[in-house]
Amino acid sequence: MKRTLGVCYYPEHWPEPQWATDATRMADLGLTWVRIGEFAWQRMEPEPGRMDWGWLDRAIETLGAAGLKVVLGTPTATPPRWMVTKHPDMLAMDAQGRPRGFGSRRHYCFSHRPYRAECARIVGLMAERYGPNPHVAAWQTDNEYGCHDTTLSYSDAALGAFRDWLAQKYQSPDALNRAWGNVFWSMDYAGFDEIGLPNLTVTEANPAHVMDFRRFASDEVAGFNRLQTDIIRRHTDAPIAHNYMGRITEFDHFATGADLDIASWDSYPLGFLSDRLEVTPEHKRHFARQGDPDFQAFHHDIYRAVGRGRWWIMEQQPGPVNWAPYNPDPLPGMARLWAWEAFAHGAEAVCYFRWRQAPFAQEQMHAGLLRSDSVAAPAHDQAGQVARELAAMPDVEPTAAPVALVFDYASAWAWQTQPQGRDFDYFRLVFHFYRGLRALGLSVDILPPDTADLSAYRLVLAPGVATLSPALLGALTGYTGTALIGPRSNAKTADFATPVPLPPNLPGLACTVARVESLPPDLPVPLAQGGNFLHWREKCEAAEVAEATTDGWPALVGQGALRYLAGWPDEEALARILRGLCAERGIATLDLPQGLRCRDSGARRFWFNYNPDPVTHAGVTIPAAGVHWQEL
Amino acid sequence: MKRTLGVCYYPEHWPEPQWATDATRMADLGLTWVRIGEFAWQRMEPEPGRMDWGWLDRAIETLGAAGLKVVLGTPTATPPRWMVTKHPDMLAMDAQGRPRGFGSRRHYCFSHRPYRAECARIVGLMAERYGPNPHVAAWQTDNEYGCHDTTLSYSDAALGAFRDWLAQKYQSPDALNRAWGNVFWSMDYAGFDEIGLPNLTVTEANPAHVMDFRRFASDEVAGFNRLQTDIIRRHTDAPIAHNYMGRITEFDHFATGADLDIASWDSYPLGFLSDRLEVTPEHKRHFARQGDPDFQAFHHDIYRAVGRGRWWIMEQQPGPVNWAPYNPDPLPGMARLWAWEAFAHGAEAVCYFRWRQAPFAQEQMHAGLLRSDSVAAPAHDQAGQVARELAAMPDVEPTAAPVALVFDYASAWAWQTQPQGRDFDYFRLVFHFYRGLRALGLSVDILPPDTADLSAYRLVLAPGVATLSPALLGALTGYTGTALIGPRSNAKTADFATPVPLPPNLPGLACTVARVESLPPDLPVPLAQGGNFLHWREKCEAAEVAEATTDGWPALVGQGALRYLAGWPDEEALARILRGLCAERGIATLDLPQGLRCRDSGARRFWFNYNPDPVTHAGVTIPAAGVHWQEL
Amino acid sequence: MKRTLGVCYYPEHWPEPQWATDATRMADLGLTWVRIGEFAWQRMEPEPGRMDWGWLDRAIETLGAAGLKVVLGTPTATPPRWMVTKHPDMLAMDAQGRPRGFGSRRHYCFSHRPYRAECARIVGLMAERYGPNPHVAAWQTDNEYGCHDTTLSYSDAALGAFRDWLAQKYQSPDALNRAWGNVFWSMDYAGFDEIGLPNLTVTEANPAHVMDFRRFASDEVAGFNRLQTDIIRRHTDAPIAHNYMGRITEFDHFATGADLDIASWDSYPLGFLSDRLEVTPEHKRHFARQGDPDFQAFHHDIYRAVGRGRWWIMEQQPGPVNWAPYNPDPLPGMARLWAWEAFAHGAEAVCYFRWRQAPFAQEQMHAGLLRSDSVAAPAHDQAGQVARELAAMPDVEPTAAPVALVFDYASAWAWQTQPQGRDFDYFRLVFHFYRGLRALGLSVDILPPDTADLSAYRLVLAPGVATLSPALLGALTGYTGTALIGPRSNAKTADFATPVPLPPNLPGLACTVARVESLPPDLPVPLAQGGNFLHWREKCEAAEVAEATTDGWPALVGQGALRYLAGWPDEEALARILRGLCAERGIATLDLPQGLRCRDSGARRFWFNYNPDPVTHAGVTIPAAGVHWQEL
Ligand SMILES: [Zn+2]
Ligand SMILES: [Zn+2]
Ligand SMILES: [Zn+2]
Repeated sequence: MKRTLGVCYYPEHWPEPQWATDATRMADLGLTWVRIGEFAWQRMEPEPGRMDWGWLDRAIETLGAAGLKVVLGTPTATPPRWMVTKHPDMLAMDAQGRPRGFGSRRHYCFSHRPYRAECARIVGLMAERYGPNPHVAAWQTDNEYGCHDTTLSYSDAALGAFRDWLAQKYQSPDALNRAWGNVFWSMDYAGFDEIGLPNLTVTEANPAHVMDFRRFASDEVAGFNRLQTDIIRRHTDAPIAHNYMGRITEFDHFATGADLDIASWDSYPLGFLSDRLEVTPEHKRHFARQGDPDFQAFHHDIYRAVGRGRWWIMEQQPGPVNWAPYNPDPLPGMARLWAWEAFAHGAEAVCYFRWRQAPFAQEQMHAGLLRSDSVAAPAHDQAGQVARELAAMPDVEPTAAPVALVFDYASAWAWQTQPQGRDFDYFRLVFHFYRGLRALGLSVDILPPDTADLSAYRLVLAPGVATLSPALLGALTGYTGTALIGPRSNAKTADFATPVPLPPNLPGLACTVARVESLPPDLPVPLAQGGNFLHWREKCEAAEVAEATTDGWPALVGQGALRYLAGWPDEEALARILRGLCAERGIATLDLPQGLRCRDSGARRFWFNYNPDPVTHAGVTIPAAGVHWQEL
Repeated sequence: MKRTLGVCYYPEHWPEPQWATDATRMADLGLTWVRIGEFAWQRMEPEPGRMDWGWLDRAIETLGAAGLKVVLGTPTATPPRWMVTKHPDMLAMDAQGRPRGFGSRRHYCFSHRPYRAECARIVGLMAERYGPNPHVAAWQTDNEYGCHDTTLSYSDAALGAFRDWLAQKYQSPDALNRAWGNVFWSMDYAGFDEIGLPNLTVTEANPAHVMDFRRFASDEVAGFNRLQTDIIRRHTDAPIAHNYMGRITEFDHFATGADLDIASWDSYPLGFLSDRLEVTPEHKRHFARQGDPDFQAFHHDIYRAVGRGRWWIMEQQPGPVNWAPYNPDPLPGMARLWAWEAFAHGAEAVCYFRWRQAPFAQEQMHAGLLRSDSVAAPAHDQAGQVARELAAMPDVEPTAAPVALVFDYASAWAWQTQPQGRDFDYFRLVFHFYRGLRALGLSVDILPPDTADLSAYRLVLAPGVATLSPALLGALTGYTGTALIGPRSNAKTADFATPVPLPPNLPGLACTVARVESLPPDLPVPLAQGGNFLHWREKCEAAEVAEATTDGWPALVGQGALRYLAGWPDEEALARILRGLCAERGIATLDLPQGLRCRDSGARRFWFNYNPDPVTHAGVTIPAAGVHWQEL
Repeated sequence: MKRTLGVCYYPEHWPEPQWATDATRMADLGLTWVRIGEFAWQRMEPEPGRMDWGWLDRAIETLGAAGLKVVLGTPTATPPRWMVTKHPDMLAMDAQGRPRGFGSRRHYCFSHRPYRAECARIVGLMAERYGPNPHVAAWQTDNEYGCHDTTLSYSDAALGAFRDWLAQKYQSPDALNRAWGNVFWSMDYAGFDEIGLPNLTVTEANPAHVMDFRRFASDEVAGFNRLQTDIIRRHTDAPIAHNYMGRITEFDHFATGADLDIASWDSYPLGFLSDRLEVTPEHKRHFARQGDPDFQAFHHDIYRAVGRGRWWIMEQQPGPVNWAPYNPDPLPGMARLWAWEAFAHGAEAVCYFRWRQAPFAQEQMHAGLLRSDSVAAPAHDQAGQVARELAAMPDVEPTAAPVALVFDYASAWAWQTQPQGRDFDYFRLVFHFYRGLRALGLSVDILPPDTADLSAYRLVLAPGVATLSPALLGALTGYTGTALIGPRSNAKTADFATPVPLPPNLPGLACTVARVESLPPDLPVPLAQGGNFLHWREKCEAAEVAEATTDGWPALVGQGALRYLAGWPDEEALARILRGLCAERGIATLDLPQGLRCRDSGARRFWFNYNPDPVTHAGVTIPAAGVHWQEL
C-alpha cells in the first residue's frame, strides 16, 4: 500500500492567478492529493439551473497540470440561498421546533425528498462532467454528515418519512403497539399517521419510540449518501469517500460506509480534547497542545473498520483551530506525529486542512499550512518532513491486530435514550476499554456489531453492546479465544425491551443480571482484587465467579471463552483484568507510561510521545511530540 | 387503626392467564391492597365512546377472589391518542410557548374545559360500574398531579380561565390594577381580556401577577380533582385518595386534600435524594443507598395533615428506580425500614410500586417486588417480613406530637416568585427546621396555614410564611405555648405587597424588619451565642432581644409566647434555639447521631437507622438499615 | 463646577397629599434634583390620545415650589398596554424567535417605525408642555437603553430595517458578498431581501454578518434616541441626559452620547459585583457589602468620556437591591463613599434611586432613602452628610489624567462574535487593564476609539481594539508619549476579516502576529521577567523584543512610542509592565493595598477605602467604607 499526503483547497476563495503558484508549492512540498469543491454549490450553480463549470474545469486542470490528484467533493452540505427560497421546508427543525436556517452550512433535512432530488441533480451533473476527468482520482460525498448535531431533524419532512419507515417496519399499528409496549401509559396508536416525533413530550417518550426514531434517522443518512454514490459510480471507477467527524455517533457509520470505497475522518486532536472528552482537568492541561493520546487512534481503528480496510484522514489539524472552547497552538512536531500515527494505523492518505488560512468568514481563525499572507505556517514544514520520510520508507500491507473491540452505533443511541445513570455513555465506555488496551501496548482492531467470525482474534471485547446481533452470538458460539462481554451487554431485545430470560443470557454462561445500579462518581464499588467499579455495576447470579466485589457480588464471571464483566472498571481494575486475559491467551503486553503509545504496522512498531516532555522507555528516549519506529 | 400493605399492579400489562397466579402470590405475601387502572384509559375506551370493561371486570374479580382489595384509579393522567385528535388544544403549553405533546403522560392542561368533560364522562362510567363492586374498596383520582412540572400551563385554555378567575376575584380592572400596583411601570389594564400570562415578559413580571397566576393554577388542580371526587361519591362510600408526588409544591395540597378522604404520596427515597435535595455531596454519598433520613418523614407528616389524619403511601420504592440522575440499589432492609417509618408516622397502608418490573416502555429499569422474569426481588421478602411484623403488633391510635410546624404552599410560590436571594427556597427552609426538630428526637405535626387552634401544641414554628392567615393570627393571640415566627414571616400582604406597618407586625411583639439581606453561601452572619445566619438575615428594630448577631443586630426577638427569628439559622444555631425553647416548655429533647431518627406512635417509640453502618444509642445497637421499637 | 445631589421620585406611586411633605423632606436633606416621569406613560395617556397632564403639572409645581429642580424623563421605556394592542408587532423578538411580551418594561423593538412615531408624539407633547417650565431643568430620554438584553431584536421590524441598512451600506449584494466573504460556504445573496438575521443558523453565522447586525442594532438605538433629543431641543435649552446601565456594551454609548448634553449612569455596586463581574469567590466575598473597588470608577470615567466631560449618576444604590443573585446590605458609609467617588471622578450630580421604597410591584425589595413606611433608611442620613460636605467644599474644574485608556464598544461586539477562546471578553480585558492602572494610584481618562489627538497623555493603552480607526492610527503617528497596543489590537479589517499584512500592522513597529492561542485558565504562559500571560497569547515575529515568554516568544515588543503586548497579562505582569512604562514617562505610581483606591480631582486627592476594615496607607488610617481627601 502506497501512503500519500494531501491538502484541502478552495480555489473559489482565491484569485485565479494564484492557483498555479499554489499548485506548484503543493507539489513541491510532496503532496499527492488536493480535495476541492465541497462547499462551492453556489459557484457551480449561481442561479437555479444556470451552471458555471468553467472555473472548476480550470482549477482541476491547474492542479492536475502540477501533478496533483483531485478529490472532488459534492457540494450538498451547502445548498445556496436560492435553494431555500425554492424549498422553504427543506430546513431541519431542532428538537424545540425551531427551523435551522440559512447562513452557515448543513441547513437541510435528510428526509426532505425534493432536496434529495436537487442533490441527485447536481451530483449527476458533476459526475457526468468530472467522472471521466483523469485528474479527478477520488470523490467525497457531502461533508461531515451529522456535524453540528444535524442527524436528527424534527421537521414535517422527517415526520412523514418516519411514519412511512414505521409502516414499512411494522406493517400494522398493533404490531408497533406491541413492540413498543404502548399499553404502558395508554400510548397506543390506531394508525401510523397518529405517531409523532419523540420530542416535546411531557416527560420522557417511550424509549422504543425514541430508538426507532434514531434508527430511522440513521437510515436516512445512509439513504442520502447512497443516492450520491449510486450516481457517481455510473460515471467513474474512482473510489468514493465521505469525511466523518470525530465522535459523531448519531448515525451508523458502518451502514453509510457500506456504500463507500474509502472511509475518511477529520482529525482535530486539540479541538476534540477541548470539547468532547470526559477526562480530568489535569489530563486536559497535560495534553492541551498535543491532544489525547488515544482519541485519534481510536478513530483511526474505527474508520479502518468502516472502510473495510481502506481509510484516510481527509482533514488533519495543522495548527490552532477556531471552534473549540480553547484553541491552543499545537506543540512543534505534532502535525508530523498525527500524520505518522494515522499511517501506523493503516491510513492510505493524510490530507491537511487547509492549504491557506482563510482571512474571511467563519473559519478565519483556523490555521492552514500557509498563513493568510501565504507565508508557511509550522505545519507546512512538518508536512514536508513527513513527505520525505514516507518516500524513504517501503510500502506496507495491513495486518490484523491480536485484540478486537466491538463498536456499535446503535448502542450509543440506546444508552443515550436510556442512560439510567448520568455518566453512562457508550462511546465513553468503549473508549475507556480501548485506552486500557492501548496502555498495555496493544494494537487493536475495531469490529462492527454484526461480525460473524472472530477467529482472527485471541481476545475480543464487547462492553455495552445493547443487543448482541445474531451474527455475533453465532460467532461467540464455539469461539476459541476469550470474549469479554459486559457490562450492560445484550441487555435489550431488538424492540428495546428487557429480555426474559434476563441479560446477558449468553450461550453457555451461567450468569443472570438480577439488577443494576448507576453510581455517582464519588460512590465506587471496590473489587476484592483491587480497583473499583465506577458509574455502573450489576448484581449478578452466576456460577463461576472469577472476581468479586468487596461487598460480595460477582464482578467477573466465567472461566472459558465467555467472560462477563459486571460493572464499569476503573483504570486499575481494567488493566489487571485485561493483563490477566492477555496472559491466558499468550498476548504480550507492555506497561506504557502516560502519553507514550505504540502501534504495529507491518514489520514496524511505531512509537508516539504525546507528552510535552521527552520520555524514555525500554532504553529509548523520544522527544516531546516525537515519533520513533523500530523493526519488529 | 389497622395497618396494611399493598402493591401497584397493571393487569393490562400481562397475559390474562398470569393474573390469578399473581393474585395468589400477593395474598400469600400478606398484601391487602392492589392499586390498578390509573393508566388504562386506552384499554377501557379503545376508540371514542367504545368501552371495553370486560378485562377490568375480570381483573378485579380475580384479585377479589384472592382476598385482595382493589384501589381503583381514574385514568385521566393518560388520555389516549384519539383524545388529542379530538381536542388538539387540550395540551398544556410550557413557559416557552411550546405545546407539551402526546407520547408519555400528563399531556393535558388542567384548564381545558372540554377535557374536563371527557374526564367527567370516564369517571362517571367507572364509578357507576365499579362503585358498587365489593372488591373496589378505595379510589384514586388521576396520578401524581403536578408531576413533570404540569401544574402551570401557558395555553390558551389557561389564559381564558385565568382571565375569568381574575374577573371573579377583582370584579373590575381598576381593583386589579390597584391590588397589583400596576402603576409601577405603566402596567395598568383597561379590561380583563388585556391580561396575559406572566411568561415571556422582557424582565420579571409583576410578582402580584405571578402570584395570582400561581393561585389560579392551584385552584385549577383542586377544581379538576373535585370534579372527579364529586362524581365518584355519587356511586360509592369507598374512600377516595390521590397519590401526591414528593416535593411537589406547585399547588395547594390542603385544598385538593379537602375533597379527599385519604391523602397518599409516592415515596422514592433514593430518587428524591439524588434529584431534589439541597444537601452536601458528602451527605448524598453517605445516604446514597438509604435516602435522606428526614425527607420521607417530612412528607409523612405533611400528608397526615393533608389527609386530616388519614394517609397512605400509594407507591413505595422497592429497589433501584429509573428516573433519578443516579439510581443505586437500596441497602438490604430499606424496603422494610421505609414501610415501618411510614407506619410510625401514622400511615394506614403502604403500597409498593410495583408488583412486577415491566420489561417494556418508560419504566423498564424501575424495580418491582418481582423481577421481569417473575423471580422475587429483594423487596418482596422485606414486604413479607413487614406483613408478618404488622400481624404480630397491635393496632394503634394516632396521638398528637408536642411540636408543630406550619407548612404553607402559597409561601412556596411566594418565594419562588420573589426569592430575593438565589438560595431562598421555602421548602428548603421549612425542611431545615423540620430536620432540626427531628435531630432533637421530636415527633412533629404539620399544620396547614389556616390553622385556627394551636392549643394542642407546646411549641409551634412558622418560618417563612409569607402571609399569616387571619385564622393563624387569631390562634397566636392568647396562645399559651411558644410560637417561633420568622424568618421572613408575615412579610407580604394578601396582594403580595410589603405591609405597612412593616413586617412581621405581630400582635404584642415589638419588632420591625427595617431591611433584609440575602447572602451568598460563603457570607455567614455569626450569632453571638454560636452558629450563624446563612442565606438570609433581617435587620430588625426590636424591644426584647433574646439573641443578637455579632454585628449587633437582634437575632431572636421576644420573651413571651411570640418569638421572632431574624434570619436563616445554620444547624448549630437552630439546634441551640430549639433546645432552649423546648426546655422552656418542658419538652424533652434528645441529641441524635447522624442518620438515627425516632418517631413515637401510640405507646411505642420507633427507631430508624438510616446509616450504612450500625449505630449505638442509649445502649441499643441498631444494624445498618435497621428498625427498632420500644415501649414508651 | 457646582456639584449637587438628587433623587428619583415617582409621584404617581403615592397619594397626592403626600407630595408636598416629600418635597420638603428632600429639600431639607440638601437635595437639588428630582427625576420623575420616566415610567408614567399610562398616567399621562390613559387611553390612546386622551392626555392627562394635570397630575404631572401639579407634581412638578409641588417639587419646584420646594426649591427642587426636576429632571423629566420621557416614558418610552414603558408603553401602556393599549399601545401593544395598537401595534402588536412592536414587540422585540428574542434570538429564539419568541416575542418579548407586555408585563414588565422595555417591551419594544427599536426598529419598529410606528412605535417610534408614537414616541415622537408623546415626547413632542411633553416637550411642548414642559420645555418652557422653569422647574424642569434637565431631561432624560427613555430609561436604561439595552437593559434586560433589549438592544438586539430578531423581529420582522428589525429584519426589514436591517435589510435597508445593509442596502444603504453596501449598495449591491455583490459588494456585501465580497465584504462578508460569502463565497466561503456558498452563502452569497442575490438580493438584500434574501438576507436574514443571524440567529437560528445551524452552526455559527458568518461573523461579518453578525457584526453588521450588531452595528445596525447600535445605530437603531442611536436613531431612537436622536428622534427624542431632536424634538426636546425644539422646546428647551435644558440639558438632555440618558441614564445608561452598568456593563451594557451592546450599543455604542459614544454614538448615543453624541446627541446628549450629559451622560449619566445607574450605579448599583453590590448588584454589579454579584451578577456581572469575573472575579474570584474570595474577591466577591471580601467586597460583598462594598462593591468592587474599580467597577464604579471605570464607569465614571467611561461616562465622563461619553458625556464629553459632563456626566451624572442618575441612579445611585442606597441599600439592598432586589435583582442580583444575592442582595446584601451595604456597609454603613458606602452610600456616602459611592457619591464622593463619583464627584472625585468629575460627576456634576449624584441622584439616589429612589426616594421611598415602593411597597408593590417588581421593585418592592429595592431600598430607597426612605423605607416604605417613610422612616429614613441609612442612606438618607449619608446623603445628608454628603450634602453638607459638598456645601463646605469649593467647586472644582476638571483636569486631564496622565494616562488614557481606549474603550471601543464595537470591539466588545467583535470579541463576542468571535471570542476564539471562552474567556476572551473585551470588557473584561479593558477593565483588567483599568484595574491595573488604578492599583498604581493612577487617575485615568477613557478615550473613544476615534480619538484623533493623544497629545494630552503621556501613556495610552489600547488593548483589544479590534480595528484601530484611521483617526487613532493618525494620532499614533508621531505620538510622543508611549502607546501600549495589544493584545489582539488591530486584528480585524473594517469588514471583520483578517488583515493582510497580518496584525497588528502598526506604522513603524516591526511586529507580525503569526498565530494566536486561546488558553484554558489553568494553562498560563510564564513570562521571563515574572508573571504570566493568561487566556490569550500571540506568537509574533518582531524586531525589538522588550520582554519574552519563557518559551521564547516575544511578549512585549517595541522600544519607542509604540509597544505591542502579545498576550493577556496577569496582575503581576501587568503591574510590572505598567510601572516600567510609567517610569519611562515620568508618571509617578503608588503601590496601593487591596481595596484602597485614590482619584485626583482638581487640587485634591480623594481616597476611598472599599475594605470592610480600616486601612492604613502612607501614615493615614481610613476607616472601613471611609473617604479621605487631601490637598495635592
Ligand atoms: Zn489535464
Ligand atoms: Zn367477587
Ligand atoms: Zn412654579
